[in-house]
Amino acid sequence: MQQTRLDTARIRAARRVIDPVFLDTPLYRCEALEPGLGCAVSIKLETANPVRSFKGRGTELVASLLAEHGPRAVVCASAGNLGQALAWSGRGRGLDVTVVASRFATAAKLDRIRALGAGLELVDGDHELARERAADIARYEGIRLVEDSLDIETCEGAATIGLELVEAREQAEQTGLTGLTGLTGQTERAGLAGLAGLAEPAKHTELAGTAPPFDAVLIALGGGALATGVGHVLKALAPGVEVICVQPSGAPAMTRSWRERRVVTTDSADTIADGVAGRRPIPAVLDDLLLVADDAVLVQEASIVAGMRMLLDHAGLVVEPSAALGIAAILEDRDRFAGRHVVTIVCGSNVDGAAYRRWVGPAALPHKA
Amino acid sequence: MQQTRLDTARIRAARRVIDPVFLDTPLYRCEALEPGLGCAVSIKLETANPVRSFKGRGTELVASLLAEHGPRAVVCASAGNLGQALAWSGRGRGLDVTVVASRFATAAKLDRIRALGAGLELVDGDHELARERAADIARYEGIRLVEDSLDIETCEGAATIGLELVEAREQAEQTGLTGLTGLTGQTERAGLAGLAGLAEPAKHTELAGTAPPFDAVLIALGGGALATGVGHVLKALAPGVEVICVQPSGAPAMTRSWRERRVVTTDSADTIADGVAGRRPIPAVLDDLLLVADDAVLVQEASIVAGMRMLLDHAGLVVEPSAALGIAAILEDRDRFAGRHVVTIVCGSNVDGAAYRRWVGPAALPHKA
Repeated sequence: MQQTRLDTARIRAARRVIDPVFLDTPLYRCEALEPGLGCAVSIKLETANPVRSFKGRGTELVASLLAEHGPRAVVCASAGNLGQALAWSGRGRGLDVTVVASRFATAAKLDRIRALGAGLELVDGDHELARERAADIARYEGIRLVEDSLDIETCEGAATIGLELVEAREQAEQTGLTGLTGLTGQTERAGLAGLAGLAEPAKHTELAGTAPPFDAVLIALGGGALATGVGHVLKALAPGVEVICVQPSGAPAMTRSWRERRVVTTDSADTIADGVAGRRPIPAVLDDLLLVADDAVLVQEASIVAGMRMLLDHAGLVVEPSAALGIAAILEDRDRFAGRHVVTIVCGSNVDGAAYRRWVGPAALPHKA
Repeated sequence: MQQTRLDTARIRAARRVIDPVFLDTPLYRCEALEPGLGCAVSIKLETANPVRSFKGRGTELVASLLAEHGPRAVVCASAGNLGQALAWSGRGRGLDVTVVASRFATAAKLDRIRALGAGLELVDGDHELARERAADIARYEGIRLVEDSLDIETCEGAATIGLELVEAREQAEQTGLTGLTGLTGQTERAGLAGLAGLAEPAKHTELAGTAPPFDAVLIALGGGALATGVGHVLKALAPGVEVICVQPSGAPAMTRSWRERRVVTTDSADTIADGVAGRRPIPAVLDDLLLVADDAVLVQEASIVAGMRMLLDHAGLVVEPSAALGIAAILEDRDRFAGRHVVTIVCGSNVDGAAYRRWVGPAALPHKA
């Protein structure tokens, strides 16, 4: 493939810099989700760490470099997860961290940023205004601006997820199966046929444990750090795997840009998926995304909520809306994924309790005896 | 220490047999929990795997041995998690698995056992009756009985959690800190003093990120596989770490037995923590527990529910009651843990939606703007 800004050797080296608490996250099939989705689904869980999102992988790189060479003060704009992660990584290295966020940002994220000792400045507007304000602060105060998705460390940190996915897939290919031993390829295919709804329930149950290595990865698309990072590694090391980016219909700027192969901005963003609600794609990030994404799809808010409910009811996972985008994409295009094995990256779990309860609702949890 | 039935070398070897999907689970500090608990708390998360509990570590050992040498048919009694794990491990190796459970068992657990293709027999009584029935089936049908906590594989599988804890602790000792770099021991102590409520809020916030390696592990106590397994490894390899077993007051048989140093049975068990609701401790397991446990404490149902709520609200984790026992123990004896660093093993997340909703309640999630 053509060269992105990312470098695979540098991404491998990044693993030695990132605190291990963010690395080698769980990757596991969640069969309880599968009857409702019609395909084999594996979850890459990026929420079981001190900041409950994947962003620590990138901020560890940023903060390490600054602690060694750079200024001791740093500012970023954030919908909340980058800010929380940068606050965590910076605190451990004695950096002075300022986070600029929209005053409409998720309160739980802002609370954690404060608790981690970072300075927090709220702007009376959306994430794009926070980006402008952070850039102003950096300029006026002469401190380092961390720009999510533009700064290569944020992309290459996220890209370490891709390394872990590729490694797991290679191991699955060697054993011939994922998470199971001793079954034949024929049984695998029969099992997946069952999942696609072609077999009767009993057979489905019996065979559902088998699956070939995953052939698609569903990635939440916002600024693009996660998508270009994971996408770069997959295209470099496992080019047969489909890289599918998923964005809310209410915040479609990057997806439209990818489709039109030029930066398309929007006047507003309207989605509960606060982590991916940008309006102004960064040209250099779009260039990378054009090289690594096989597709970019848009999903409805109702599908995001349905995905959050499914992850709660069938996987026991509390997730933020951005982390349900992959499940939403399957729900909206079941035929596309029928009988396949897809990975969805559960990228964050920072939610406001009240909002989460409103979204998933009391009825979302099954009323069983 | 005196010899338990467990063997550290065999436990190390077990890591090569157990499917990696159950190994090297997340271990991370959860600072959002700490202001409410008054101590540093790390979570060892055993729920992000295909069976949502730690039991797969043991059933992988059992099923591997049977697949190599033993009979192809196996039966176990289970409150649900062992059965689900054995069904998963057995399916992958072509074993014929039967699970005997109480008809009052958690429906979600029974559903998963069926979905994994195991035979399920329900008895009209509690877990002890299921144990009797499973033994009868094994005898009549001449198939292998897997007895949780008695069969050494179930203990040594769980013990691999202990290896991971010890390894993480050794790494933390080498760097001098947990999850952070570059701060001094003095700052550590100041940080923990802040957590213990001795410092003012601002200082607490600033310093809370630092903690020495953990000095206690809180372990759910039921049949004893988890407690003797993890306890054995800690006492063998990190004897300074306090091994604290936690059981519900409503199902206190093993705790009373440990205190009286002889098997004490109870006539009934009354707790929402279904996974640890035994009434008849196994003598050989008690003998091991007497060698490895520093303490065994009982907690109230209200504390278990409060622990589940805290894990949901502040850690974003859906857990089953047994997995909240450690938090419950801290809530009931804050002075004991003040300023210390404790690990709690979150051992399972298989809950019935309706019951979980009733326990944690709509009010449990914070009403924030």
